[in-house]
This record gives sequence, C-alpha cells and structure tokens, in this order.
Amino acid sequence: MASITVQTSPSLALIKYWGKETQGINIPATGSLAVGLHDLRTKTTVTANPAASCDRVSVGGTEQPLHHFSTVIDALRERARASGRSDADTPLSIESGNSFPTAAGIASSSSGFAALTIALDAWWALDLPVAELSRIARTGSGSAARSVFGGFTRFRAGSESAEPVYDAEWWPELRVLVAITDTGPKTVGSRDGMERTRTSSPYYDAWVADARVLIEKAEHALADRSIERLGPLMRESYLRMVGSSIAASPPVLYWLPASVAVIRACDDLRGEGFVAWETMDAGPQVKILTTARDAETVKERIASVAGVQTILVSSVGGSPVVTRKDRDNGDSEA
Amino acid sequence: MASITVQTSPSLALIKYWGKETQGINIPATGSLAVGLHDLRTKTTVTANPAASCDRVSVGGTEQPLHHFSTVIDALRERARASGRSDADTPLSIESGNSFPTAAGIASSSSGFAALTIALDAWWALDLPVAELSRIARTGSGSAARSVFGGFTRFRAGSESAEPVYDAEWWPELRVLVAITDTGPKTVGSRDGMERTRTSSPYYDAWVADARVLIEKAEHALADRSIERLGPLMRESYLRMVGSSIAASPPVLYWLPASVAVIRACDDLRGEGFVAWETMDAGPQVKILTTARDAETVKERIASVAGVQTILVSSVGGSPVVTRKDRDNGDSEA
Repeated sequence: MASITVQTSPSLALIKYWGKETQGINIPATGSLAVGLHDLRTKTTVTANPAASCDRVSVGGTEQPLHHFSTVIDALRERARASGRSDADTPLSIESGNSFPTAAGIASSSSGFAALTIALDAWWALDLPVAELSRIARTGSGSAARSVFGGFTRFRAGSESAEPVYDAEWWPELRVLVAITDTGPKTVGSRDGMERTRTSSPYYDAWVADARVLIEKAEHALADRSIERLGPLMRESYLRMVGSSIAASPPVLYWLPASVAVIRACDDLRGEGFVAWETMDAGPQVKILTTARDAETVKERIASVAGVQTILVSSVGGSPVVTRKDRDNGDSEA
Repeated sequence: MASITVQTSPSLALIKYWGKETQGINIPATGSLAVGLHDLRTKTTVTANPAASCDRVSVGGTEQPLHHFSTVIDALRERARASGRSDADTPLSIESGNSFPTAAGIASSSSGFAALTIALDAWWALDLPVAELSRIARTGSGSAARSVFGGFTRFRAGSESAEPVYDAEWWPELRVLVAITDTGPKTVGSRDGMERTRTSSPYYDAWVADARVLIEKAEHALADRSIERLGPLMRESYLRMVGSSIAASPPVLYWLPASVAVIRACDDLRGEGFVAWETMDAGPQVKILTTARDAETVKERIASVAGVQTILVSSVGGSPVVTRKDRDNGDSEA
C-alpha cells in the first residue's frame, strides 16, 4: 500500500458529553446523542516513512507533538505486531487537514482521532470491528468515539465506545449551521474545562444525574423525528452544561458577546416560526440545528449578527470514507 | 404633617439572594450580603389625599396598580389603626421617583419598597424598630429588607428581616459602577425567574446548599476588607445564580452581548492589576465593584465597550434620609 486516506466528519453533540469518569481514559460521565456534520471533512493520509526515526504527525501542515496521538497509534501498532505485520514498526507519516477553518473551534478532534484510527486500521489491514475502532478513537478524544460512525450516534455514560443509532437517511431534512464568531481570548480547553467542572462545580453531580433524563427524552424525540421536542431538549442540555461550567471555581466561561447575540437571534427566529435550535460546546461558536426549508433564512439572519465572521452549512451524515492508493494502480474507495 | 419625604438607595447584593422559601412572603432561600449604592437615590413623598376614594401610588409620574404595594401599606395602616391614629384611614398620595434612569434595570424595587415603608412609618409616627421596618419592606420586595439600612447588610436565608453588618465607613474606598447596556427583549422578571429556577432547575438544591458556604467566606472577606478574597466570591455567587437560572426549563437567560463584553472587559482589567469585580442580577446590566483609586480607569474602559449606554458611579452607603415638611414651617431632616 502506498497510502491510505480517510475522510471523517466532526460529531456534533445535540445532547452533551461533559465530564469524564475518574477511571479509564475519556469514559464519559454523561451520555451524548450526536450527528455527523457531513459537509465538514477531516482528511488524514498515512504513508510509510521508513527513513525516519519515529512517526510524524502533522495537522494543517504543522508538525504536532507525537505524544498527543500515542494512545491511538500505540494501540493499533500493538495489534499490527500481534497479527504478525512485518511493517508494524515502520515509522509512519500521518498528514491531516480540515476542510473547514482550523481556527473555527469546531470539534476537529472528533473527526481527527476517528480518521487516524480508521486510517491505521486500514494501513495495517487489521479490519477491527467498528465498535473496537470507536473504543480506540475514544482514547484520543471522547467525541471521536462517535465520529467513526456516520449519521446519528449515541455514546452512553460509562461506555468504552459509541454506537450508531440511525444513518443519515433517518432525518435527511436536518441541517446544521456553524456560526463562527470572532476568536476570543484564549480560554480553557474542553479537557481542562470538564475537569475543573467535575472537581469544583457545585452543580456537577446534578448535571450528571439530570443528563440521564435528558438523553432518554431526546432519544424518543429523535425516534419520532420531532424537532419540536428535540430542539428544547438540545437547549436544555447545552445550557445546563454551561451552567455547570460557569459555576466552577474559578468559573469557566466560553461565551463571547457574539455567542449571546446568536443565541438571541435564534430565539427571535423561533418566535417567527423558523426552526433554529442552537447548541454550544467548549468555545464561543454557536451551532444551529435547522431544516433544509429554513436553512437559507436562518443563515442570512445569523450572518447579519454582529461578531459572526463565517457560517458553515452542513447536512447530517459524515460516514468515513477510506481511499487506498497502491503503488501500481490508482485510487480505490471503500 | 404636610408631607414626609424619604430617600433610600438600591441595595446591591455581592452575594446573591435567588430563590424563595415556599412558606411566607419573600423569605429568601439563600442568604445575601449587600452594599447600599449611596449615589443612586429613590425619593418617595407621602401626602394626605382626603378627597380620594383610595390611595394613589405613582412612580416616575406614572400611576401604579395599588395591589403591588398592598402588603406594605396594609401592614403599616393596620398598626396606625391599632395605635389609635385618627388619620389611619385617610387616603394617601404616594409619589416616588429615582435619581437614576428608570429603564436602568437596577433593583429600584429595593429602594422603592424601603422608602415606602419608612415613609409610612414616619407619616403615622409609628416609630417601629428598624428590624420591623425591614420585615415589612421585605413583603414588597425581598431586597427592600436590606435597603431600609444603609452601608453593608446581610439577609440570612430563612429570615424575615435583614440586618446591618457595617456602616459605610467600614470600607469607604469601595465604589460601584453600574454599566447600563442596551435594553434587550423583555425577559422574565426576577420573581418569575426565581420561581422557575426553584421549580425546574436541576441545580436549585445545589445552588441553595452552596450559597451557605459562599456567604460565610464572603463575610470573613468583608470583615478583613479583602477585595482579593471578596471579588472572586462575588463572581462565583452571581455566576452560580446565572448557572442555576439558565438550567431552568425553559431556560432563564438575562444576558445580552454587551453583558458578556463587560464581563470580559473586567477580566482584562483584573489581568492588568485593576480592581474590577463584576456582578449581575435579573437583567442585562453589569455592576462592578472597584475602588476610588481605580474607578476612573474602570469607568473609561467599560464606557468604551460596545453596547454600554451609560455608566453610573456610586460610593457605598445609602442610609435612608427622612424629611418632614410641616404645614407651617420648613423642612426638617432626621
């Protein structure tokens, strides 16, 4: 094999994962329900780099500290060795890039670690079950456990891997807008934000307990494709996540003025009968769940909000695509 | 007596009252620690209006529904009757106004109900103990229980009245800036916001439990006049109040984009060594605790924040002032 290229999409949680179990790596304390953002792609290419003394990983052309990726690379290399692959210890060159602005603050770690996991599985022809890929991707980033699937996914509290719920065709009318705000001052990363919330927020236990109720209701709403029920549950989920974080000591606040402006604009849009249910993660960007019917109107209105720089629009889906390039023939997709 | 005029100041909670006991009227579920805003004044004048068929209350020249004031007026009139005042049932004209913009969203109900209570006590020469005035003012608005005192006050959880802690001279260097933002869409009043939080926020119990810890620490910080300790506790208090509210169903969110801009500007100012500890209540305005030394710099910087319309500056204090005007001689202050 000359190269393996894998494309994946970021996983957007409609019901939020926030907080880890103290045992294990990235075991979620709260269950999440998510969609893949089909039109936002991470592309990761693996090639052999036998002359190098160790693996090289670059993202968007910038070389990365290798230890960020070691749980995933080590786990898969270990299996390559166990299965007798003679190239298991050949150093690799791993180049990754995103189709969306890298400064977007979108969870590119979900698609990034998923792509890495799938690419190495293909590179060493391990053919691991996708649940196992999810488990391995999780050790790089919790949400990556969901990105190895496309469509609608669930990641249960306390689980080692995520699971598919429906494919993209379940609800093809859905659209997700990502409103990219001005970048703010450097804030706390999601890993540290979660940890500070867990250890110092008086609301953490209630957040975890309540999340169990929310996700169950949201699963029913998704089963019924009811945006009228799913939307308010999405809002409650992210606002309770925010509520638990700003209650930490010191407080963790990801919002910028433009974040609030977008939240209020969504409220106005809903008041006018449009579908516009916002959610947020560990950053100032706002993601909006809408429909094919309303996407253009919502996009126009949100684009006019002060502090919004760019809006990305995506349908739901985002199943991984693997492309193998052999030395002697062209591409093949699987 | 021809008229009684009482001036009071709004009470700003540094540690927040948010949530009521289910028994009684406005019995706070969380203790609060507050300062009077000396340079913001509510002035309320009581005169006899014997030709009228009932009392008349106006605020800023606009006549108000009488039932808003009935708990306070009825309680004091009852005592006037009990003490044999022949004018107990004479209808009154009660005119109130604020020295600060009425649309400011500052807790003018605290100073308003305190002024009303003190004015009627003086009008009927009841000479009730101030703790009793606090108890009566509370039935109009919880925070009014604090405004009948000046300086630093405390209102314990579960109490019927507030109590003075220190007078203004305890910490005269303190200043409070009130950053008045654009007025936003009409949101939920504090009474409804508290109630929705109590009945639907999964964080309410934790909020109430945690508030006990916070106020105790804050009392020590105030006793030591330590802004380095009081400031972070203030932030934790209001952000936990906000966290409990946005977790309600449906969420209660008072912030505007400018609110977040001011919060971030305070963060920047603190990073540069200035004293600027913000707090918020049931509205988009941001109040900032600073010192005489830093007030001018903080004011300039906050004035340049997009969406900030006006900034009011106040020292701490705000003891009530009663002015009696007799029919045949001039004013006398007591």
